[in-house]
Amino acid sequence: MSPARQPEAVVLSIGEELLQGRIADGNAREFAQELLRMGFVVRRFLTIGDAPGDLQRALGELDGSASVLISTGGLGPTADDRVRAETAAYAGVNLQEVPGAVAALTQLFLRNLREEAPKPFLAQGFVPGDARPIANAAGSAWAFVLDLPRGTRYLAMPGPPVECRSAFHDGGGAAALAERAHGAAGVAFRSFHTAGAAESAIEAKIRELLAESENPRYGITANARGVTVSALAFAAEGGPSPETLLDAASVTLRERLGELLWGSDADTLPEVVVRALVARGASVTVAESCTGGRIAAAITSVPGSSRVFRGGWICYANESKVRELGVAEALIEHHGAVSEEVAIAMAAGARERGGADWAVSATGVAGPDGGSEAKPVGLVWIGVAGPEGAWAVERRQWARAGRSSVQQQSVRDALDALRRELSGQPRLPPRP
Amino acid sequence: MSPARQPEAVVLSIGEELLQGRIADGNAREFAQELLRMGFVVRRFLTIGDAPGDLQRALGELDGSASVLISTGGLGPTADDRVRAETAAYAGVNLQEVPGAVAALTQLFLRNLREEAPKPFLAQGFVPGDARPIANAAGSAWAFVLDLPRGTRYLAMPGPPVECRSAFHDGGGAAALAERAHGAAGVAFRSFHTAGAAESAIEAKIRELLAESENPRYGITANARGVTVSALAFAAEGGPSPETLLDAASVTLRERLGELLWGSDADTLPEVVVRALVARGASVTVAESCTGGRIAAAITSVPGSSRVFRGGWICYANESKVRELGVAEALIEHHGAVSEEVAIAMAAGARERGGADWAVSATGVAGPDGGSEAKPVGLVWIGVAGPEGAWAVERRQWARAGRSSVQQQSVRDALDALRRELSGQPRLPPRP
Repeated sequence: MSPARQPEAVVLSIGEELLQGRIADGNAREFAQELLRMGFVVRRFLTIGDAPGDLQRALGELDGSASVLISTGGLGPTADDRVRAETAAYAGVNLQEVPGAVAALTQLFLRNLREEAPKPFLAQGFVPGDARPIANAAGSAWAFVLDLPRGTRYLAMPGPPVECRSAFHDGGGAAALAERAHGAAGVAFRSFHTAGAAESAIEAKIRELLAESENPRYGITANARGVTVSALAFAAEGGPSPETLLDAASVTLRERLGELLWGSDADTLPEVVVRALVARGASVTVAESCTGGRIAAAITSVPGSSRVFRGGWICYANESKVRELGVAEALIEHHGAVSEEVAIAMAAGARERGGADWAVSATGVAGPDGGSEAKPVGLVWIGVAGPEGAWAVERRQWARAGRSSVQQQSVRDALDALRRELSGQPRLPPRP
Repeated sequence: MSPARQPEAVVLSIGEELLQGRIADGNAREFAQELLRMGFVVRRFLTIGDAPGDLQRALGELDGSASVLISTGGLGPTADDRVRAETAAYAGVNLQEVPGAVAALTQLFLRNLREEAPKPFLAQGFVPGDARPIANAAGSAWAFVLDLPRGTRYLAMPGPPVECRSAFHDGGGAAALAERAHGAAGVAFRSFHTAGAAESAIEAKIRELLAESENPRYGITANARGVTVSALAFAAEGGPSPETLLDAASVTLRERLGELLWGSDADTLPEVVVRALVARGASVTVAESCTGGRIAAAITSVPGSSRVFRGGWICYANESKVRELGVAEALIEHHGAVSEEVAIAMAAGARERGGADWAVSATGVAGPDGGSEAKPVGLVWIGVAGPEGAWAVERRQWARAGRSSVQQQSVRDALDALRRELSGQPRLPPRP
């Protein structure tokens, strides 16, 4: 619940292909972010089909429930594009031609397909009477804005991403909605990323913020890449700006989370590590067993990573650990491939062979098979070798989420171990 | 617009982070496909927040509107996980412990974190009275199925994809919904995966199927992993079953698409390649430059891939191509690192050093920088070495989609080149 009275918004997606799971709906998410930036609180996403009556029913339910409603889809030239007609029927108005639109569509069709445009194609130049036409420079269908009978302002846009973006940003869609935001511009959002501790441990450190703080409002989410704390701040009459509130939140979280915190917003852990290496003029190499190339893939996802990344080894089989990295066979025999000793030898070997300043290694049991009581699925040793020697840390990954998640958690831990070294933080702790 | 009278379903997604556009909702789409396969018609997706009252309000609206309702999210251990309590309040029942669940959760917490579990963590072992508990082997929260007062059967699942999948497929969620599908089984869906040709080329081969076939209905989608053709078949009075229609579609598509077709439904290209290697008792190694470990990551995503995967080299820097794989320095000087000659030398060197039957290599310009007129961003050479020699093919990847997409397209092409070799198909063609 937002403390300040933010105007509310609902996002509607129209299309049978969405309900059949045939295509992913990226529009709802994208426009939710836009609406948030404009100062709206998005209350709901709704996806409906394109059968006759579907939209009229939805408009009946949604009109009056929010200040603004936006939709994507249902404005094209085919028979199941019913948004124009159903909106007009709901509002009790007729369709009207956008001045000059039919002539322009006729010409467009003639030029592209060398024949007379069929009637459904020309229907794209009509909008419900009283609606404000919204231009769509990326396609042929006009979008529109209409104030519905119970007061909700409705922006109807075409479904293809380039077309709804064009209508929203360039055609006047956003401007028409902004009148309803009446200077709200009052929301700011930041996310703070951590690694090295479980969600429950992070939660324990900020429990009363999560439970009690109303502005900013805090949230917490976890996945294999780490735990993220988010803060959503609202403008309040005479109070500090949302950005000021978030700056203060940032300080608070830094105090509470310490070295667990590695970045914010669009930062990624590989980027943070690559930036730290570039700043020191240092290079890195990798020796990967259970992660199978994923640490290297994460590092090379960063543009310009070739400045610091030397390459590395995927040593899946034991003989390649021995042959390529010089891991002593006796070490593997005595301690097993998944062991502190082998993780250290892999990192040290890769650092030396690769001529790099730093090396990270990972050896573990990714599953689903291959675990034992002593070395269960999810057990991973992360090794780090640097100018001052090599060491390794045992991590117990959350194994029930599956092989791919164990691999991803291990990539996160390997990068996090290096991040901590490079920034002079305490070492990554073992998780018992 | 399904022909037969199918039972209806609604898909609910719960979480403030969805409405703020912070994370994408893959669950709704995935479960819509599952429900479709079971014979339900999905009428709506709805996304709501996790403020107090949000779910109760939605249940009040949706109960009675469809035969089944499924939700993901809101079942975790934190304060904003309100699904259990709000469902119980809506249904007018109390919460009940799943027999033995609290003891198991206490143990789990103790084992992983070495301390007593906090109360909110243990709350995950409770479900509304009368609900059927649904096991979630991938996480700690119990899912449940409850028949709501106005008759809709409600399946509540946790949000993390691995957890809701586990509850749905293995924990009994799908089985509880299937009782409501009462033998509908009137819809069937299959997808057919291709590689090696652009979407427009695939479309040209099946154009009239896409335009004219009503049962099955065909669709086409493309992403960096390839182009997929989907077919959706309906039961019709006195006609063939949907499965029979899809079997016929499968034959038709195999004729039209030939060696471009590599799998269907849940198949992945790495799996297909690993299966082919296992079937031949053959092994593989990799030499990766621009793909930076992603080919190895793809192969090692397949459980049991250690039977065929020997490991490999990430040779990002030129000196590592020379030192590790024995690529002649002169070759790099004369032709450049991104060249047919170097791709072949990398593959041949990796095959020999790794003692494997097969090797694949990739060297290219992933971007965003580093391109030239002669070697633009997106240019990638894929090398293959096998028992009968080594060769390479030039591919021009779609570069405007960005670095990560160029890398992914190159992984697809490298695996596809090997798939074709292993199955005796024509070689991957160059794309000019």
